[in-house]
Amino acid sequence: MPISSDEQKFLERAIELSDRGMTGLHGGPFGCVIVKDGAIVGEGYNQVTTTNDPTAHAEIAAIRDACKRLATYQLTGCDIYTSCEPCPMCLGAIYWARPNRVIFANTKQDAAAINFDDQFIYDEIDKCRDERQIEFIHAPHKDALAIFEKWKNLEGRKEY
Amino acid sequence: MPISSDEQKFLERAIELSDRGMTGLHGGPFGCVIVKDGAIVGEGYNQVTTTNDPTAHAEIAAIRDACKRLATYQLTGCDIYTSCEPCPMCLGAIYWARPNRVIFANTKQDAAAINFDDQFIYDEIDKCRDERQIEFIHAPHKDALAIFEKWKNLEGRKEY
Repeated sequence: MPISSDEQKFLERAIELSDRGMTGLHGGPFGCVIVKDGAIVGEGYNQVTTTNDPTAHAEIAAIRDACKRLATYQLTGCDIYTSCEPCPMCLGAIYWARPNRVIFANTKQDAAAINFDDQFIYDEIDKCRDERQIEFIHAPHKDALAIFEKWKNLEGRKEY
Repeated sequence: MPISSDEQKFLERAIELSDRGMTGLHGGPFGCVIVKDGAIVGEGYNQVTTTNDPTAHAEIAAIRDACKRLATYQLTGCDIYTSCEPCPMCLGAIYWARPNRVIFANTKQDAAAINFDDQFIYDEIDKCRDERQIEFIHAPHKDALAIFEKWKNLEGRKEY
């Protein structure tokens, strides 16, 4: 699908950030920018290994940056430009942030070719929890359920 | 599956945090603790609405806290106790952090009953990108691919 020259410019900024983060040895080769009304409102690159934060992917960093700058937890009306197709964690974060569109350059197959195997995580998510490589144990607790009930009627609660 | 009394204690701490976060109006009713060698090394509760961070789920907060305290981006040998079955974003984060086990109380069905519909995101992840409710546009770029190539031979790079 062709994109406009403005969109191309934003995508190239995301790609530039992927190079900057990698070359500076901050983390993997991934960059992201978030755009609203034709202006960049958030930026990020991967910093997993230097910040000791396995969630510090480019998209998560850019979402957090944009939400901070816009003082909101919803990216309505925003587009996300990312140098690579999002991993499952970032895809989940994108759905929680609810932007309009995601434009990406490299695919998850391109990422797998340099040893970032998101497909493993995609496959694990689809497995029922008894078959996953990380053990998932369901231990129901009445207090946990009671707190969910309390939420339903909590005064001042803010849905998201 | 039954859990030990020690494990029950850690799960109850996660549940207590879910109540504390909710009652303090920090965000939704979700709490998480991370345990290594019988001691809590990370804690978190949902703070999405008060910190304007859609990624500030309990599990993400606890993972970031544990990794900071342990000075690592890998939670090898750790167990994650969470008041509710993780959403797709947190499940992705858990796979990147690579703990041993995840013990949870409420299920995603319990969460859906109080209007936290993770299932929508699970369904979207499974769709091919042309069929998703958020538009995903693939715009290949030679620079993005070149940067991936550069990563393969980058001196000083740290895999994760």
